This record gives sequence, C-alpha cells and structure tokens, in this order.
Amino acid sequence: MSESAGQRGCTVGIAGFGTVGQAVARILSTDTHPGLRLTHVCNRNIARKKADWVAPDVVWTESFDDLVDSPVDVVVELIGGLSPAREWIERALMAGKSVVTANKQVIAHAGAQLMTQAGQQGRHLLFEAAVAGGIPIVRALREGVCGDRLYRIQGVLNGTCNYILTEMEHEQVSFAEALADAQRLGYAEADPTADVDGFDAQAKLAILIAVGLGRIVRVEDIPLRSISSIAAVDFLYAKRLGCVIRQVARAELMPDTGGIRASVRPALVPETSALGRVGGSQNIVVVDGTFGGETAFSGFGAGGEPTAVAVVSDLLGIARGTPVTREAALPMGGEPQPVTREFKAPHYLRFMIVDRPGVIAALGDVFARHGINVDAVLQEPGWSKAELPFVMTLEACSSTAMTAALRAIDEFDFHVRPPLWLPMLANGATARERRA
Amino acid sequence: MSESAGQRGCTVGIAGFGTVGQAVARILSTDTHPGLRLTHVCNRNIARKKADWVAPDVVWTESFDDLVDSPVDVVVELIGGLSPAREWIERALMAGKSVVTANKQVIAHAGAQLMTQAGQQGRHLLFEAAVAGGIPIVRALREGVCGDRLYRIQGVLNGTCNYILTEMEHEQVSFAEALADAQRLGYAEADPTADVDGFDAQAKLAILIAVGLGRIVRVEDIPLRSISSIAAVDFLYAKRLGCVIRQVARAELMPDTGGIRASVRPALVPETSALGRVGGSQNIVVVDGTFGGETAFSGFGAGGEPTAVAVVSDLLGIARGTPVTREAALPMGGEPQPVTREFKAPHYLRFMIVDRPGVIAALGDVFARHGINVDAVLQEPGWSKAELPFVMTLEACSSTAMTAALRAIDEFDFHVRPPLWLPMLANGATARERRA
Repeated sequence: MSESAGQRGCTVGIAGFGTVGQAVARILSTDTHPGLRLTHVCNRNIARKKADWVAPDVVWTESFDDLVDSPVDVVVELIGGLSPAREWIERALMAGKSVVTANKQVIAHAGAQLMTQAGQQGRHLLFEAAVAGGIPIVRALREGVCGDRLYRIQGVLNGTCNYILTEMEHEQVSFAEALADAQRLGYAEADPTADVDGFDAQAKLAILIAVGLGRIVRVEDIPLRSISSIAAVDFLYAKRLGCVIRQVARAELMPDTGGIRASVRPALVPETSALGRVGGSQNIVVVDGTFGGETAFSGFGAGGEPTAVAVVSDLLGIARGTPVTREAALPMGGEPQPVTREFKAPHYLRFMIVDRPGVIAALGDVFARHGINVDAVLQEPGWSKAELPFVMTLEACSSTAMTAALRAIDEFDFHVRPPLWLPMLANGATARERRA
Repeated sequence: MSESAGQRGCTVGIAGFGTVGQAVARILSTDTHPGLRLTHVCNRNIARKKADWVAPDVVWTESFDDLVDSPVDVVVELIGGLSPAREWIERALMAGKSVVTANKQVIAHAGAQLMTQAGQQGRHLLFEAAVAGGIPIVRALREGVCGDRLYRIQGVLNGTCNYILTEMEHEQVSFAEALADAQRLGYAEADPTADVDGFDAQAKLAILIAVGLGRIVRVEDIPLRSISSIAAVDFLYAKRLGCVIRQVARAELMPDTGGIRASVRPALVPETSALGRVGGSQNIVVVDGTFGGETAFSGFGAGGEPTAVAVVSDLLGIARGTPVTREAALPMGGEPQPVTREFKAPHYLRFMIVDRPGVIAALGDVFARHGINVDAVLQEPGWSKAELPFVMTLEACSSTAMTAALRAIDEFDFHVRPPLWLPMLANGATARERRA
C-alpha cells in the first residue's frame, strides 16, 4: 500500500466488470467500507459497460496497462480463466500491487508460484472468492482451525451440480430435464461440461488441499467422474438406503504414507449427513481434524454478491494492514505430490437390464471371483422387464477390485445401459481412530 | 512477543488445567505446531494435576504471580467465571503478555474494556474459544464475512440444550428425563441452570453482537426464556407444523433505528432450516448479510478438544505476527445500547386443560379482543380429557399483544398447566427486502 494509504484509504482497481466485478463495485459504492476506495475499472468495451451508479471520479479503461501504471494499491482480478489472467496477476505483483482474485483456475494451477512471487514483492495475493464463493473457507482453514491437524476435507463445491441433483431427487426428473431447467434459470452454462463433469470442483479441491492439508497436487491428477449418467431412479434406491446423491469433492491424508487421496465424483451420502443436507445451489465444506472433529461451513458458493463479499473481505484484510506472512496461505516449492486414486468403500451398483433368469446368479459369480461380498439386492416393483433397473450394494471393497469386476460384467449382453457405480460414503475413520 | 521469540517460538503459559487446559497442553505436546512452546502451567493443587505427558521442563505453579513474572509471551486464561479471571487477564496484559481466553463471561461483560487495555499495551486479547468452541466464528465474522454488512445473527449456541431438545424430540421423553440423561452422559452439569435457562447462550450472543453487528449491549439486557417448560407433546405438534424446537439465540439490527433486537428463547424453526437441522450437542451460527445472504458455520460447540483447537488457532495467530489492529475485534467505548425485547412473529401456543365446552370460544374471544388472528387449532387424538394438550397457532402479532392476551387467558380456570408460547421463526426479511 502506498504511503498515503492511511489518509485516502486503500485504493482498488477492478479488472473484469462482469457479474462479480459489478457486485464488488456496488459494495464499494455504498458507505459500508470507508477504508476502501474504488478508483479504476478495466474491461473490454467500456462504452457498453460504464455504469452510472459508479462514482464519477472512477477511471474507466480498456487497457490493463492503465491499471498497472496507476497508483492503485490493489488489483482485483475477475476476468477468469488461465490466460491472460495469470500474466495480469504477475504484472500487477511486479508493479508492486497486491492482488485479490476469484480465479480458481489460476490459483489451482499456478497458486504456489504466484504466491512465491507475491512474497518476494512483499505483496498480498488473496483468493478467498476462488473457492465456495461466499463461504470464508480459505480463511477458516488458514486461521480458524489452524490449531488442529486436518486430515480430511469434503465438500459440495459446485452449486450447479447440486441444483441438478436435488432437482432430480425432488422432482423425479431425468438428468437432461434437470440440466435444461438449471440452464433456463441461469444456474448452468450453455456448455455445462466444467460443472457436471467435475472440472470446476476439481480446481477448487486442489486449492483446498493446498490450504487445508498443506500439499500441492496437479489439478489434473485429481480423478473425476461426471454426474451425467445418474438417473432419476437412482434417487429412489438411494432413499431406500437412507442416502442422497451428491457430487462430492473429497481429499484425505493417508495415515500411513502421508500421501493424498482425492477425487471428485458422485457418491451416495447419508441423508442426515452434513453433505446430504445441503440443498439447491448451496455449497458446503466439511473438515475433519485430529483434535476438533468435524466442522462444517455452508452458504452460497457462487453468485455475484456472495463472491463479491469474499473479495471485499480480502480487500479489508489488506486495508487493515495484515502483514504478508512468511508462512503463506499455500505451501510453496517442491514437486507436486502424486494423488492416490485407489480407495476402499461400500458400493452402490445400479443395473439397467433386459430381465431374464440367471442375471443375479451371473453377477454374483463375478463378484465372488473378485472377492467382493454382495450386501443386498434391491428391486422396486413396477418397471418394464425390457428396461429393468435394479441395485446391488456391495460391502467395502477396493476400487481396483470393483473396476476389474465391472470389466467382466460389461461382457454380459443383458445390459440396456452401462451399469452405474457409486461409492457409498460414510464418515470413515474418526479422529480418535486415526490417533490410536 | 519478546525479541528472541523468533528462535525459540512463541512461549505459552496456561492458567487453569481443567478439560480445555489439558487439551491445549496435549496439542502443544505433539509436534503439530513447532512455533508454539508450552513453558508454564498454573493450577491449584498441582501435585494432583501434574501430568507425566507434559514435557519435563514445563514449570508447574499454583500462583498466577509466577505466570505474570515469567517470560511467557502469551497467557492462556482457562479458569472460567468473572473473578478472578478478569483481574488475571488485566494483570497479564499490564505485564506485557498477550492473552488468549475461552472465557465467555469475561468477554461478554468486560470485553470492550479489556480490549482497550490490550490495545494500549500493544498486546493481543483473543477469544475465539469463548463462543461456539470449535467453530471459528469470531474470525469468520471479523475477517471472513467482514466485506458484508451483517444484519442478523442466529444460533444454536448451547450444546446441552440442543442435546436435551433433540433427545425429547427423538425419544418422546419429558424434559426431566432428557435432562437426567444428559447429566448421566456428562453433557449437562449437576446444576443445569446456566444452560437450560439460557445464561450461557446469553453471554455468547452478547459477544456475537459485538463482533458481528458492531454493537455493545449489556449481557443481562438480553431477554431469556428457559427451555424447561417444553413438553414431549410439543414436538409432536411442532412436527405437524413442519418444525422442530430449538433454543435460539438471535440478534438483529433494526432497519429503521439501527437498534438491536435480541433474545435467547426456545422457538419453533422449520425442520429444513439450518437451525432445525443441527442435532445433538452440535452448535451452529447462521449469519445474514445484506450482500452475501445466509452463511452457516456448524461444528462442536463445546468439549475440551474442539475448544482447545480454537485456543491454539488464536496462539498461532499471535505466533505468526498478526499485528494488534487498531480496529479491534470488539467495538470499544461508548455506552451499551438498549436491547429491544419487543418482536413480531407468528406464535405457537400450547394449552394443557381440563376439557369442557366453550374453551376454544373463550380463548378465541380473548385473541379477538387483542387484535390477534388465530391461524389454526390442532388437537391430536388419544389424550385424557382431564389433561388435554392442544395447540393454537396465531398469525404474526406483537409480543406485547401476546403478553397482554396471555395475562387475560391466565385468569381462566381450565388450565392444568400454564400455557406455553413459542415464536415460530421463519427467515424473516431477506437481504433484498432490507435493501429495498
């Protein structure tokens, strides 16, 4: 912050005047935070963007150079995507600005390097808004529960998926219908891939792993499964099992090796669990610590205003003179750690078959050969024999055994659709068990 | 922190070696936080307390003077109660120590003065553990959502009450039975007054009002209602209304005057609401902001280890060199604000009567005279006519009108027990409505 910051407040330039940028500008245009002053807005086509509710002395520009050359204390990067956002952040830091960003891709892919650079410059790089929008999870992990030794982070990190899944559950509609609905309401993009296939949550999980578990992983090393093969009938069977289906982003330290197991995939979770109770487009992050047990943080994970609150909270942290700490919010340096994909869990397996004698026996035989115990077979009445859904639940088994068994099962010719398999997540080992 | 703190880490003295003190010492005795070093423990009767798992070079003392005279950087006050805790905190600050405390009474009653003193000494006074134990709510309010303008804080802040109420709900037992159960399991004290009558939550709410809404109120100005008059049958009727019963601590800024409305009382909340979903001895804090909407924080509100995590997180904040900010965590100076007790809400009214003709008509007449509209009359079958519970729900009316009507109703001779009235809390005005 420049020397005169004390008198004139902390000056802020926004790069990217979309939904979040406008919401940040709106908050800074109220009298809520007298210590913050919006002085610059940078966006393409400012003639179209210029808003009359922004103070008349704010400088509007289409060139990021103007922001870099300006005397602003903090640049707020809200253009999204990897490029040119990463370069812009680097340029702002090199010019002696602190940076606040909501950009999950940049932080997930290049956070450690950018953080090193910020540290060298004695400037802040804050990114509360990059994960779970309005939920102050980065700060909670970094400061609120830092006294604990966290060993697991689970979350529902993508509001679009959660909207689609809770819609399928409550309205008993297909994935396609729920997606169309979400698109109509503006909860899903025209191209929903990043959300439904898990890329969005993958980047957010990589950041949570860094901040909460102190490990750097390559974003693309976190395995993904799409929610698109889930059918309405799965929610009926899940309910019979006391469960709901969520897109779960999950990472844990492996107690033996200290390695990281992580994934983003649809899973059955108990309907009474913290993950199970989060509905609609809300997000939740549940952390487990060796000492403090389970703590949950929920709220609006996206949307202009909640995300803007996270940005402004970061700005206030800078304005209050929080020092650039030597221990930064992200572990720095060193090679990314490998991510273990292998896991052990009970499984939910839904088949869609042409019914005929011997199906259960054939499947049971495959599982027996792979050392997997069948827990239950569930079949709701009233479905066509030509496209019959039924479910098998399996006792805890390794994902490797499951994958091998499923390869054998794929050979059968009674499938109408490929089988769907989902892990059934309970709470796993407790803190006490891990310490024992 | 003394000059050599960098090399030897931040040194810590614990005053009060009870459940929380021991849990703090246990965490500091692991290798989790190399920057923190436990050097002193102060407690009565150390011969009985001394633990063999504490490092042999730790100094044990029965005199707080020894802690004050020692070179420790931070004194952790865990003796509880107003006196001598307040004096000890003052002495530690005057001796140039920073102080971390879990003492809700001291912070609720004297936090502003102590914070002023800490500021003058350039020392920290941190109290994350004083509210909702393992939930990092003080930091979340102060830093995580500070970019917002909060207008309401609601919480289930007392795990004992929540255990008793969820036990009554699930087991359909009386208050006395659930309390006895909680006492047997160690969730409730032999004298449960502070918990069930609301004093514990009252102190915590006063702190949340200061930190989150920026207003100082006198603890004893927050009105209380005990949960002890709730009967098992109330949960049956609540369920018919889609609700559960919780001890709700609630404070809001009044949009017109900027004054504070606050209370700690049992209330009906929708079973699907954030407050309704918190079960057992867990706590939750739900904050509503003008910009960010509703954000919820839940976890273990009490217990040695979760509370110890909060203490250690505060210690790490100090060890990292967080500056003593000019804007302290509590608003300082000025007279406490008056607390408005008056509120408007729909009401649940449960009568326990000797059944006879004309009861409903008599009650209806009283409500009509007080301008209160009856919404519904509910009567479950199968109860004795000599002790018949039934429920009336009332449309939103002021608590003043309710109180006046109840005074008239008390005159009737058909009561077997005094009627129970509970507000039915929905979510109230939304952020958007408030901004309009």
